[in-house]
Amino acid sequence: MTIQNLQTQAINTLRFLSADAVQKANSGHPGLPMGTAAIAYTLWTRHLRHNPRNPKWAGRDRFILSGGHGSMLLYSLLHLTGYDLPLEQLENFRQWESLTPGHPEYGHTPGVEVTTGPLGQGFVNGVGMAIAAAHLAAVFNQRGHEIIDPFIYAIVTDGDLMEGITSEAASLAGHLGLGKLIYLYDDNHISIDGSTDLAFTEDRAVRFRAYGWQVLRVEDGNDVEAIDTAIKEAKSETTRPSIIMCRTIIGFGAPYRQGTSKAHGEPLGDEELGAAKDNLGWPKEPRFFIPEDVLAFYREAVEKGREREYDWKMRFDAYKRLHPDLGAELQRRLDGKLPADWEAALPTFPADSKGMATRAASGKTINALAPKLPELIGGSADLAPSNNTKIDGSPDFQKESYAGRNFHFGVREHAMGAIVNGMAVFGGVIPYGATFLVFTDYMRPAIRLAALSHYPSIFIFTHDSVGLGEDGPTHQPIEQLMSLRLIPNLVIIRPADANETAAAWRVAVERRHGPTLLALTRQSVPTLETTAPVEKGAYVLKDFGEPQIVLMASGSEVGLILAAAEKLAAEGRGVRVVSFPSWELFEQQDQAYRDSVLPTNLQKRLAVEAGSTLGWERYAKAVIGIDHYGASAPAQVIFEKFGFTVENVIAKAREL
Amino acid sequence: MTIQNLQTQAINTLRFLSADAVQKANSGHPGLPMGTAAIAYTLWTRHLRHNPRNPKWAGRDRFILSGGHGSMLLYSLLHLTGYDLPLEQLENFRQWESLTPGHPEYGHTPGVEVTTGPLGQGFVNGVGMAIAAAHLAAVFNQRGHEIIDPFIYAIVTDGDLMEGITSEAASLAGHLGLGKLIYLYDDNHISIDGSTDLAFTEDRAVRFRAYGWQVLRVEDGNDVEAIDTAIKEAKSETTRPSIIMCRTIIGFGAPYRQGTSKAHGEPLGDEELGAAKDNLGWPKEPRFFIPEDVLAFYREAVEKGREREYDWKMRFDAYKRLHPDLGAELQRRLDGKLPADWEAALPTFPADSKGMATRAASGKTINALAPKLPELIGGSADLAPSNNTKIDGSPDFQKESYAGRNFHFGVREHAMGAIVNGMAVFGGVIPYGATFLVFTDYMRPAIRLAALSHYPSIFIFTHDSVGLGEDGPTHQPIEQLMSLRLIPNLVIIRPADANETAAAWRVAVERRHGPTLLALTRQSVPTLETTAPVEKGAYVLKDFGEPQIVLMASGSEVGLILAAAEKLAAEGRGVRVVSFPSWELFEQQDQAYRDSVLPTNLQKRLAVEAGSTLGWERYAKAVIGIDHYGASAPAQVIFEKFGFTVENVIAKAREL
Repeated sequence: MTIQNLQTQAINTLRFLSADAVQKANSGHPGLPMGTAAIAYTLWTRHLRHNPRNPKWAGRDRFILSGGHGSMLLYSLLHLTGYDLPLEQLENFRQWESLTPGHPEYGHTPGVEVTTGPLGQGFVNGVGMAIAAAHLAAVFNQRGHEIIDPFIYAIVTDGDLMEGITSEAASLAGHLGLGKLIYLYDDNHISIDGSTDLAFTEDRAVRFRAYGWQVLRVEDGNDVEAIDTAIKEAKSETTRPSIIMCRTIIGFGAPYRQGTSKAHGEPLGDEELGAAKDNLGWPKEPRFFIPEDVLAFYREAVEKGREREYDWKMRFDAYKRLHPDLGAELQRRLDGKLPADWEAALPTFPADSKGMATRAASGKTINALAPKLPELIGGSADLAPSNNTKIDGSPDFQKESYAGRNFHFGVREHAMGAIVNGMAVFGGVIPYGATFLVFTDYMRPAIRLAALSHYPSIFIFTHDSVGLGEDGPTHQPIEQLMSLRLIPNLVIIRPADANETAAAWRVAVERRHGPTLLALTRQSVPTLETTAPVEKGAYVLKDFGEPQIVLMASGSEVGLILAAAEKLAAEGRGVRVVSFPSWELFEQQDQAYRDSVLPTNLQKRLAVEAGSTLGWERYAKAVIGIDHYGASAPAQVIFEKFGFTVENVIAKAREL
Repeated sequence: MTIQNLQTQAINTLRFLSADAVQKANSGHPGLPMGTAAIAYTLWTRHLRHNPRNPKWAGRDRFILSGGHGSMLLYSLLHLTGYDLPLEQLENFRQWESLTPGHPEYGHTPGVEVTTGPLGQGFVNGVGMAIAAAHLAAVFNQRGHEIIDPFIYAIVTDGDLMEGITSEAASLAGHLGLGKLIYLYDDNHISIDGSTDLAFTEDRAVRFRAYGWQVLRVEDGNDVEAIDTAIKEAKSETTRPSIIMCRTIIGFGAPYRQGTSKAHGEPLGDEELGAAKDNLGWPKEPRFFIPEDVLAFYREAVEKGREREYDWKMRFDAYKRLHPDLGAELQRRLDGKLPADWEAALPTFPADSKGMATRAASGKTINALAPKLPELIGGSADLAPSNNTKIDGSPDFQKESYAGRNFHFGVREHAMGAIVNGMAVFGGVIPYGATFLVFTDYMRPAIRLAALSHYPSIFIFTHDSVGLGEDGPTHQPIEQLMSLRLIPNLVIIRPADANETAAAWRVAVERRHGPTLLALTRQSVPTLETTAPVEKGAYVLKDFGEPQIVLMASGSEVGLILAAAEKLAAEGRGVRVVSFPSWELFEQQDQAYRDSVLPTNLQKRLAVEAGSTLGWERYAKAVIGIDHYGASAPAQVIFEKFGFTVENVIAKAREL
């Protein structure tokens, strides 16, 4: 090993910890860590404010590795700077139950701020974090007391920049002037298929300027001082997000593979890895070598982090003394605690056969909760009047009014999903995003990541069936509801009426360990006489006599089965009516409760839901549903033609 | 009515046919047709080459209304220019079984080139059409014989430009230099939430220039001559796509609502509609008024179209005489006919316990078919080496090599889906696109539209289960397979081995009335001894003795149940092994066939599939599946931990 200075050693340590781990796992991506090691070094040792011994310190900056396939870079940084991630975990990269999975997973590894891997998501989560930070800063910071002041950093890749979700969010971030957002672009000219010349020759700098970003360049991605200067420049620009285009060489150091797609996604192989070590003056053995002084240098982060958090706490204490109410409120929100009696604000709706659309009930609930729950903020992907998401009396969240609580995401469903995720995971806010149910298809990757990572995002989806009428099959969800039920950890609630809608909101607000999705009608539905124990997922809405048959439904079809049950009862038949707003909540109940709603000896069960029938076999013997696309016509016509009539329910019930 | 020239009358006819229809339906979007009427007039009467009496004429230009919510504009144009769309259909806008649904639907209304409404899709379908046209032109056109020479026009909206899918495709279109693409941007400064200033203030012109587009401007979207000049300029630019930014006023003419979001998505109301007519000098009654000379003027399109098609046929005939082989081949491809003995090229694979990954078998099948099926073209969203999509010996499809058959879509799954749709609907090619199965989430709207509209797109999704191993839960599909099965009209095939993969390709190539999706393994699976009647969806792979129990599986789990069955058989139990590659194909079989595979008296059925169990209740009494997220570890470890072992299959079978 040639003599090299500490800095070079520290950078090469990142490279070879990563490459060694990939080699040992015989799986993974060495190219990104080796190419961006100097960038990560500069950011983490000179700028990032964090506390390895308290990864959840509320005053920290955030770091996102948007190219999650380079996970070993992040794991190396976390280990070296003193997070609770021992070297053995790095040696166990990509192995069963290790803390070092193939892609970084939020909640799984200390210090991982968001789950990344599916490209674009990390980039956009960061925009959400910057939004949450800007909002909290506007609401709470006082002159001379910038308690909420984090930078949001990310390393982003060619793949991120090609994904549409990134374009959506970059446009919005520029519009909103999110000056605390600083992204380092690993501009390595290589993707899996080969050179980016194959498919990605647009002028990225010009594109980002068009969005309203500051674009900076670092000509040599190994030049620590140039990177440092650029980050400083980015920090000093407070009215625009910054992207620093760093020209890097993928797999830097590997003599034959560097700068090629071969360095991207497979181990270097022992020979090439050894040659890379020779090339950079690194000992071939031991693997996972960390020079002592390098470790000591990185570990300074522990003491620095302790000091920074202490200093922040002192400043927060001073703030609390000067602004006791604000201070207590900010503390509550950072702690993720709800106000003691917030549920009292939930509205109740009198029974009413005319009723209202559940989207309208949701809008009323949001507005009833808004004064009591100032952390409730959100908006729609350009469908606010249809989604009923507006908080009356609050300004829009805009560049000049970050304290506003109404968001305009634009026609950008996918970015909305990932932004809401970023806001939710940042903390201090309870964010929601809304569009039509059919357009969950546009944002499914963000919904899935929320569920996988347990982000407490709230998603509101209106126009939840063919009941939306004339817009026709392109806008009518058919398979969406059931297909969302397939996503593990996602709670979906399709309330039957206004009261179930209010109860659904209670579940959503209380559920802080995963996302909740509301499916709401466009059309009016009767308001029922019910105490609506929506948190149970399903419940007996009404028994007519001794039940011989069970009718079950969700959402707008509950009114229908109730009407049918009344007719059947009038004929002297015993009928149970079950409202079934949420499969996931029902399946969380104990067997005794579930049997009490759906007794095993009561197998004559008919389910009615304006969506796919597949899956209802789990609960029902027969289903009235829709297994084809919808139609453009007034809602009532469609429901009739598709068999959603009292007569048809009765006929199908009789068949049982 | 004041005297106005024919042109003004013709434009106002579009406006008020649209507004009247929306008013009568009491539902719809008057703003776009009223704002862009002059643009549509200019394009349709001065540039668009089409034949209203033969909407499928292969030599036609294509017109896409990407903002499908403005459907009445298109229906008005189709009616006026003489397509088979009588006025009564316009009067029946958005009614049950009319030819004028809320959003334009391909295959439903003559002259509608693609289904639009979900924003961005039309924009991107057009890119696919331009790609298909460029490819066919490169392969078939000869000097002086430009048989394939269409322009692809679209009216695109703010919503389209905000959607990420559009950014993805616009970047690719610029990269590919698609000079025949001419988009007219309805730059009206209004979206549903209000002014585009709320969320969309990026510099769109600069952004499109960054992608490599020619950007033109029309300052007044009612200025026919300016529009005409811009279209001419766009046509003369042959090396770049063009976007013409037309400053329009949404709902033009409506005195109180024009230029506001109120004009966007609801009827004007009788009063405002009347005032608009007064304003533009139009008679209030009758509704759906078409001045005679306006109709006569638009109907010139019939004669012009007849002449144009005739002229094209003459040119095509001359081409055929000069180039008989090429001519016959082009005719075959435009007719959508397969070569007579193409199936002979399908490979067969000898039984082999080591076997190969089905993705590898797919790659071999593509390459076996490629020489025989020159229309088979496609590629991957930057995962070509993993998806095995490369056609060996063919160049890439690039700006300088449009005859190439290998596509690099970049990390742009969603655009890939809609581009493949556009290519498929253009005709003359059989396109495929590929990525990992988990990333179907990124492109689901395009898959759905293919299914809804019966586009014969082929999608190849590899890494189809936790069997992909170390990449972990972000990359491991769990719910994707079942959730795709919920999409009506979509055929999904998850082949068990190399031979089923070849058979799956046969189905995909022959299926010309809807999309086919292949789900393929990353890992090796044994090659079985089977004639693989995949087209039946499910079949008896093997009976061991007189069956008392059925084991069924798809894909990589078929080898597993076969091994389990052999052990059970060795214990003297009768076992049927059913390979179940496709639910949709099985459900298309008659009852007799289905009963022959799954006899009603044989209810002891165990399904094994490495994905969600929900839905399997339809066929099986018990399921071994996965209802939680995956894990990062070597594939064999995951399969063991998740119960995909011979022992567990046997244990579960015994429980039955």
